[in-house]
Amino acid sequence: MFDQDLAQKASHNLKKVREKKPLVHNITNYVVMNYTANALLACGASPVMAHATEEVEEMVSLAGALVLNIGTLTPQWVEAMLRAGRKANALKVPIVLDPVGSGATLLRTDSAKRLTRELSIQVVRGNASEVLSLAKKDARTKGVDSIHSVEEAQEAAIALAGDLKTTLAITGRVDLITDGKRICKVHNGHEMMGRVTGTGCTATVMIGAFLAVDPDPVEATTTALAYFGLAGEKAATQTENPGSYQIALLDALFSIHEEDLRKGAKIEVVR
Amino acid sequence: MFDQDLAQKASHNLKKVREKKPLVHNITNYVVMNYTANALLACGASPVMAHATEEVEEMVSLAGALVLNIGTLTPQWVEAMLRAGRKANALKVPIVLDPVGSGATLLRTDSAKRLTRELSIQVVRGNASEVLSLAKKDARTKGVDSIHSVEEAQEAAIALAGDLKTTLAITGRVDLITDGKRICKVHNGHEMMGRVTGTGCTATVMIGAFLAVDPDPVEATTTALAYFGLAGEKAATQTENPGSYQIALLDALFSIHEEDLRKGAKIEVVR
Amino acid sequence: MFDQDLAQKASHNLKKVREKKPLVHNITNYVVMNYTANALLACGASPVMAHATEEVEEMVSLAGALVLNIGTLTPQWVEAMLRAGRKANALKVPIVLDPVGSGATLLRTDSAKRLTRELSIQVVRGNASEVLSLAKKDARTKGVDSIHSVEEAQEAAIALAGDLKTTLAITGRVDLITDGKRICKVHNGHEMMGRVTGTGCTATVMIGAFLAVDPDPVEATTTALAYFGLAGEKAATQTENPGSYQIALLDALFSIHEEDLRKGAKIEVVR
Repeated sequence: MFDQDLAQKASHNLKKVREKKPLVHNITNYVVMNYTANALLACGASPVMAHATEEVEEMVSLAGALVLNIGTLTPQWVEAMLRAGRKANALKVPIVLDPVGSGATLLRTDSAKRLTRELSIQVVRGNASEVLSLAKKDARTKGVDSIHSVEEAQEAAIALAGDLKTTLAITGRVDLITDGKRICKVHNGHEMMGRVTGTGCTATVMIGAFLAVDPDPVEATTTALAYFGLAGEKAATQTENPGSYQIALLDALFSIHEEDLRKGAKIEVVR
Repeated sequence: MFDQDLAQKASHNLKKVREKKPLVHNITNYVVMNYTANALLACGASPVMAHATEEVEEMVSLAGALVLNIGTLTPQWVEAMLRAGRKANALKVPIVLDPVGSGATLLRTDSAKRLTRELSIQVVRGNASEVLSLAKKDARTKGVDSIHSVEEAQEAAIALAGDLKTTLAITGRVDLITDGKRICKVHNGHEMMGRVTGTGCTATVMIGAFLAVDPDPVEATTTALAYFGLAGEKAATQTENPGSYQIALLDALFSIHEEDLRKGAKIEVVR
Repeated sequence: MFDQDLAQKASHNLKKVREKKPLVHNITNYVVMNYTANALLACGASPVMAHATEEVEEMVSLAGALVLNIGTLTPQWVEAMLRAGRKANALKVPIVLDPVGSGATLLRTDSAKRLTRELSIQVVRGNASEVLSLAKKDARTKGVDSIHSVEEAQEAAIALAGDLKTTLAITGRVDLITDGKRICKVHNGHEMMGRVTGTGCTATVMIGAFLAVDPDPVEATTTALAYFGLAGEKAATQTENPGSYQIALLDALFSIHEEDLRKGAKIEVVR
């Protein structure tokens, strides 16, 4: 039922992250900085957080991937994201965007849209509301308010990915990954992940780490989410409480063997 | 000895938080953002951190309560707090203020006083020095330097609550809650809570969550502090070390049953 | 083999930190604020984070030591560091600098150099690249790019400490502490410390706490690093995973007895 080639690739990508230890440059929100830095270390990558406009171009030049996250944004931080992003584009450093709260306030929606339109972004990851809020009002993509079912959300995401020329990852009970043509689903994960702040942001940095070793955005994203979801499952075998779970999730990212991932990845290739 | 009606209400308020999952908007300090977000999730509420002046009015419009915390303030952040606070007042969204470090520097004391005078704030929570530093020099309230006993602090707090037309919560070994007329004390808590950074700030966000479901500031504050103190007691049964305690406290916030709180709340109604 | 006098002093310094509970003022990066605050509490000190130019002079006047850390710097934060540092110098409050990422970007290298040249800084702690990046291009000290062995790094550090008139601590598998004349090495520590973000920054705040009770920068630094390294060893007996290790390290800072430190400190006095 689940795709064996992508399970194998997930294992392979994890191995490459652990061997190459890619530097992942984060311009991200204050709430999750410590946790996502530790998650990147736990998976084998090397995190750096830097947001000053004076240094982001230099920093991203050293990096294997750039993570942009608008969780506690201000207009000044968006400028730093644009500056780092333009340099990343010039150097072919892949970018993953987490449009935290897009759709909730104008500043967030406008900033997320501006980032997707002024930069070439390889992957956008969010929940359905956040991702679908990136659609233009007059686009053929349905806005989030008009979505009434999972199927409609999926169709909207496929259309939006084509419009934005990017890979979209909508994470939830089942994760949907699409570049407008290909569609994958990841069935790994655990409901406890929603009880800890910043697990969505952590999924995003895992995608960043995998993008640094895999040039195919759909496969890097799908395999990263299978890995992160499997870690979530493993952590849930340790505890039922959210404080302990936050810690167990880091432990699981570190202790999952590549072979565990090959066996445990639940990736469905829809088309 | 302890009040049964308020113990019952504590249990009831916790149930309502878990059912309604109120959004609590935080403009708070960098040190505690991750921890207080996780504490709000653990108690059943939904946290958001947002501080850009461009979005705080929109964000607080979605919220059930607003938490203002001056722990790592700058003048720009105080402007964002005022802007969010005015909107909250207009929309009747309750506000809780944590005047971290007020009394220690002029910036903090002046900012905390400005917030209490320009906004209608439902609850202020701090330690005795922080709360009593809010008194005007020439007020009938004694300044913190002239306080020589717990009894004097209590009298000063009652007078100050009347002057500021707000509910004050002075937390410590025993918590004192007063609006100038009513006085409650909470006898829950554990000394280990002082070994972890941000437990005071976490008490404040618990008050925010309870204010979102209970319009009576004295009762919302008293019941929230009983819940938080009981979680502190439960966590202390798990460990004697502060790293583990920080985690156990989140676990306890999540795992305390409403019935545990009804039985364990140690609330004294003084008048 | 290991120095007994300094092991005794390590134990003595830890006792003094726990008795005096010195206030340590931090102007530091967003990633580690929560963790280093908790580490300072766990060792017995009292942390405060404050960065507004309007209040840093007042805050540092209350402090026993000032920690400057450029991990997520902007030019505005460097101004706050300079302002706090000048006041600290005037009041003889000791300063420890952590030049995070110096050498990686011009902003970081220039800011770190400016801090070391405009302020009298008692201790600089970093890895070899960070510390040696502080050398002037034309100095007798070798730049980091020309270092090819541990012995060369050691000679470069001794020369640089003399040039900067400060104590340098290069932490790694073995820590090197020198003021250009004296040289100490600390053989405590564990490789798991590299698996958690901010352990370097945490070593720095431990030096801050010890500087607040010991006016000798070489001995304060050496004893603080022995204590921190021993905590790292103790934590490694609890777990092999990085999430749990982050927590176990805080627990160990708290639970190490002064006598444990006297017995466990592995300090070598080279000259």
